[in-house]
Amino acid sequence: MLSIGSIVLGVSDVPRATAFWTRALGYVPRDEPEEHWVVLAPADGEGPCLSLGRSDVPPSPRPRVHLDLYAADAADQAAEVERLLGLGARRVDWDSYPDDPDFIVLADPDDNLFCVIDTSRG
Amino acid sequence: MLSIGSIVLGVSDVPRATAFWTRALGYVPRDEPEEHWVVLAPADGEGPCLSLGRSDVPPSPRPRVHLDLYAADAADQAAEVERLLGLGARRVDWDSYPDDPDFIVLADPDDNLFCVIDTSRG
Repeated sequence: MLSIGSIVLGVSDVPRATAFWTRALGYVPRDEPEEHWVVLAPADGEGPCLSLGRSDVPPSPRPRVHLDLYAADAADQAAEVERLLGLGARRVDWDSYPDDPDFIVLADPDDNLFCVIDTSRG
Repeated sequence: MLSIGSIVLGVSDVPRATAFWTRALGYVPRDEPEEHWVVLAPADGEGPCLSLGRSDVPPSPRPRVHLDLYAADAADQAAEVERLLGLGARRVDWDSYPDDPDFIVLADPDDNLFCVIDTSRG
């Protein structure tokens, strides 16, 4: 059966995105990185790859496709958000939060939006 | 450590997208589907979730973020592409194929582009 082998993110600076996403997720380059393309794989072998490709398509403030990163609970979510901000993510002033959201919207250094989810909320 | 828990795809018709993606990947709804939102999870527990959410953001002919579905080899890739076309995908007339590509570009029923990769090519 087919599998979700990788999610491909367009970025403007592959080395910078590699530095961010390897630290964010505990991933490592699967092969020797190319100038404008790299496939990152989980260091522990668990989970899909994340591919970073140089793209001229501008990032969207309301992307149709995005990543949800799962944290264990609210404390883990808060700690991971702070860690990601320290790695170069930024907090997004999202205008569509529901009341008491279980997610926090961040952007990576290439302005790709993603969410950090408190999965204890179900 | 944070994990890539899910990839969120914007769609115009959640039930139709659910029918397509559950069959495409061998996924099942993780919880009771809502009208405009569902999280699909691997039936065998292996791999990230795929979340489908109703979105007014139009699909892009050159998306910045997309899925790469991994097939075992060229024969598997060809068979899976035919199977996906039968499920409601369509072949995309991609203008940026390299010579002898290891990927085939398709679109899901909501015009989200994705690739099917022959992973035997390295």
